[in-house]
Amino acid sequence: MARSPGSAPRIRLVARTEFLFPDDVPFRTDADGGQALAEFAGRACYQSWDRTNPATADNKGYLQHILEVGHLSVLEHSAATFYLTGISRGVTHEILRHRHFSYSELSARYLPAAAGGPNAETGSAEPNSEPPTADELSDLVEPPAVAADPGLHRKFVAGAKAAIAAHRELLTALEAAAEHAPDGTLARKQARQLAAGLLPAAARTALVVSGNYRAWRHFIGMRATEAADVEIRTLAVGILRELQKLAPHVFADFRISLLPDGTELAASPLVADA
Amino acid sequence: MARSPGSAPRIRLVARTEFLFPDDVPFRTDADGGQALAEFAGRACYQSWDRTNPATADNKGYLQHILEVGHLSVLEHSAATFYLTGISRGVTHEILRHRHFSYSELSARYLPAAAGGPNAETGSAEPNSEPPTADELSDLVEPPAVAADPGLHRKFVAGAKAAIAAHRELLTALEAAAEHAPDGTLARKQARQLAAGLLPAAARTALVVSGNYRAWRHFIGMRATEAADVEIRTLAVGILRELQKLAPHVFADFRISLLPDGTELAASPLVADA
Amino acid sequence: MARSPGSAPRIRLVARTEFLFPDDVPFRTDADGGQALAEFAGRACYQSWDRTNPATADNKGYLQHILEVGHLSVLEHSAATFYLTGISRGVTHEILRHRHFSYSELSARYLPAAAGGPNAETGSAEPNSEPPTADELSDLVEPPAVAADPGLHRKFVAGAKAAIAAHRELLTALEAAAEHAPDGTLARKQARQLAAGLLPAAARTALVVSGNYRAWRHFIGMRATEAADVEIRTLAVGILRELQKLAPHVFADFRISLLPDGTELAASPLVADA
Amino acid sequence: MARSPGSAPRIRLVARTEFLFPDDVPFRTDADGGQALAEFAGRACYQSWDRTNPATADNKGYLQHILEVGHLSVLEHSAATFYLTGISRGVTHEILRHRHFSYSELSARYLPAAAGGPNAETGSAEPNSEPPTADELSDLVEPPAVAADPGLHRKFVAGAKAAIAAHRELLTALEAAAEHAPDGTLARKQARQLAAGLLPAAARTALVVSGNYRAWRHFIGMRATEAADVEIRTLAVGILRELQKLAPHVFADFRISLLPDGTELAASPLVADA
Repeated sequence: MARSPGSAPRIRLVARTEFLFPDDVPFRTDADGGQALAEFAGRACYQSWDRTNPATADNKGYLQHILEVGHLSVLEHSAATFYLTGISRGVTHEILRHRHFSYSELSARYLPAAAGGPNAETGSAEPNSEPPTADELSDLVEPPAVAADPGLHRKFVAGAKAAIAAHRELLTALEAAAEHAPDGTLARKQARQLAAGLLPAAARTALVVSGNYRAWRHFIGMRATEAADVEIRTLAVGILRELQKLAPHVFADFRISLLPDGTELAASPLVADA
Repeated sequence: MARSPGSAPRIRLVARTEFLFPDDVPFRTDADGGQALAEFAGRACYQSWDRTNPATADNKGYLQHILEVGHLSVLEHSAATFYLTGISRGVTHEILRHRHFSYSELSARYLPAAAGGPNAETGSAEPNSEPPTADELSDLVEPPAVAADPGLHRKFVAGAKAAIAAHRELLTALEAAAEHAPDGTLARKQARQLAAGLLPAAARTALVVSGNYRAWRHFIGMRATEAADVEIRTLAVGILRELQKLAPHVFADFRISLLPDGTELAASPLVADA
Repeated sequence: MARSPGSAPRIRLVARTEFLFPDDVPFRTDADGGQALAEFAGRACYQSWDRTNPATADNKGYLQHILEVGHLSVLEHSAATFYLTGISRGVTHEILRHRHFSYSELSARYLPAAAGGPNAETGSAEPNSEPPTADELSDLVEPPAVAADPGLHRKFVAGAKAAIAAHRELLTALEAAAEHAPDGTLARKQARQLAAGLLPAAARTALVVSGNYRAWRHFIGMRATEAADVEIRTLAVGILRELQKLAPHVFADFRISLLPDGTELAASPLVADA
Repeated sequence: MARSPGSAPRIRLVARTEFLFPDDVPFRTDADGGQALAEFAGRACYQSWDRTNPATADNKGYLQHILEVGHLSVLEHSAATFYLTGISRGVTHEILRHRHFSYSELSARYLPAAAGGPNAETGSAEPNSEPPTADELSDLVEPPAVAADPGLHRKFVAGAKAAIAAHRELLTALEAAAEHAPDGTLARKQARQLAAGLLPAAARTALVVSGNYRAWRHFIGMRATEAADVEIRTLAVGILRELQKLAPHVFADFRISLLPDGTELAASPLVADA
């Protein structure tokens, strides 16, 4: 029932910044997307479209300079959106503390439609022809450190099974009561919400999260350090890998390394500890 | 173990704005604190210290006018901080979505010190001479609608008991393993964090939350409506009652009323539905 | 010297959201870019990838529904960046009040390099081979309502000429003093900053501004109304036109109309007045 | 006409945080106000109400520890509001870039009422019995470095006089035209706004600004450094002095020192350069 030890959160880049070179500005560079936009914004502050200083003549050199002098506001124009699954409600509770991001999270009222019934989740009457199966819904995110130890794993699975059974039993009773309610759809949503109180923090959720490059650097600087918890640290390192592919000139200063326990951390000489 | 049906979340106003009349500005009004500050800020925009228009000559009339014309930015200067207990991690998960607030929440790593041992929670070596008892920690927030129905209540209590037992068993095993770790304090914190995955969303937490009057109006406008879930709605109505005592000229337009199920909602003609 | 009456601010869309359909999620839609991302985020909350309700089966219907029920947070994932020129420092002063945007503005320390000299503006030693000409720098943004009246226009031009002459005279004296300073680059920047005190609010500036769709809707809702000043209103209507091309399903509810004085406004039935 | 060389911006603390010790929490400390609240919030995260570690047993030691480990979020609960006068529109243009603050600024539409006429500035019909005199309105903020040099001062005053004369001439013409408008109040406001285009950046304004302790630390860390312009640096140092009186345990790490040119800067070992 719980996720297998080797499984990791899924991190998908689902949106990025596309830069459109304005045809009446003499701006050229050797990058595109969010990297080009950050350089464009920086140069607009001084109308310094020319690039005669060899140290900042290419996009990499220019953005390296921006990071070194701390003109981080130009990094705010460029953004990346991730769709995260295989993560727990416990970890999204931590992520939500970052107020510079925008979020859409799987609802605690997430209501699998009865066969042929209406799905009123967004207020619409949209049938949900393929409700998630019980297994998908009930799955918990087992911490790798627990999964790796047979004794701990056994305890986790037993607890998870008991929690899911209790949740289902309460939900069934609440849904039975909801059947007699005048507004059936609202009553079913409320039933689900009430029953969700018995779902553990390890319950699997899904999150769409958008942030600009500056916010992502701050997130990684705080959450990829050794002091962070393993689940959010693993996520931060995984997101960093995607960002390093997307915008290497903005994220390459972060180096990923291995801890004795086999987990990873990331740090940059350009990010202060605190 | 679960909270008794009649018990409510505790809402304590722990901080408010104190206004200091500047002695070189001809500003007088018939209110103090955050209400005086909001009027002061509004009048500073036009240096309209005089109050010869009867409709806006007192603080109540002035702020009523501000609400009606929607100059809500002057309400941002004044703030209120609440200390909330007897609320669930599920409800703080919803509250954290409000990015205009500032938060300090009871840590999932909350570590009752071993007898005489160090409490390294804030990085300090501060012993915690009165660790919370097991009962305080294990307490869950039972929804009143569940508590009121003997059948549902029985199911909730059974599930809660099983969850807490499973959590304790996993925690005990993790703590035993942590004893052999080189950094005992960090290992104990990580053990607690791992075990917390089995704590249900109904687990009791505590939250210090600060917001300015505009943010509080927005929160109440969204969370005290009938469409909101009962736990957060009850909390929003309770906070509104405190704010109406603190700053009646800013919050009196919200009217509290009773729903058929015995719960309350609040709404204002000055706040749009969506 | 001042801009001709007919000239308008230049509004260039320089960046937009590119959506990347994840290959392991059964999400399809009939739009792309920011519109697809907003729908994806909304559907992720309920895993409602299917689209069997005709009313919300296409992107237009889905986003129309989002606007109507006010689930505006899903609009935060998608963004647009504009590069604005031909606008005044007076109007950017108003725009900067919108704290959900990110900004890069032409610096008041903007330092045209002496022939062959270093341009140390970003801390780099990058020569600026084509310094802006005096005309570009000195240009003021003349309000169309002033330009259209010969008497007012004459007064505006006389005042503008006097202001620019006074600014240049002070700048020349400050730059002469700066020549003897130990740190010539810093001294020249400070000279420029000091002299800028005599530049009028109508002085032309340039701004890179990024915002998500929700923030742009809020900006247009506040700044395209009749009560707004003509310069910012004209800008807001111009930006709206670009957004309606970029994301019609998100901005089509705003209708542009003409006022008796020949200027335009925009309003939407879905945006409250205040 | 311009301010005398020795005059400084006026900085008045007009609001601060008042802490209300909750009677059912065993929290005691040797400070009050915002300092007590910050400690309360930090201790609430671990329910560590006891204070047996001598290093963090008093408020000063506790907050010093918070600063050192970088748990700055607890500083967000406490706030301070300043009323600033004798500052220029140029400097408020820079201050507005700080998006964590809340602002109320003297309106560019600030309309001195005609004798006995209505003051419709806030939409009300409130007569403004003591309109600001011409001198107050026309005053410019002369940079001390300019005022100290007779040659520069002469140039600044000449430019300022010309700017104010041009502004008044344009305003008089615009107001004459506005007399025939159907909506006289709106037309007078628009006239003022149009004429304001000729007011220089040195024009005096007034600002109410509120921020929490964390935001104020960030502002001072960025704006009190040597690299900052003299006007905003002087303001930042002046505000720091007020904050050090209000909350010494939170701001005492910043040290104020003198530069060779007679101006001041402030820096803290706990704040990174960039």
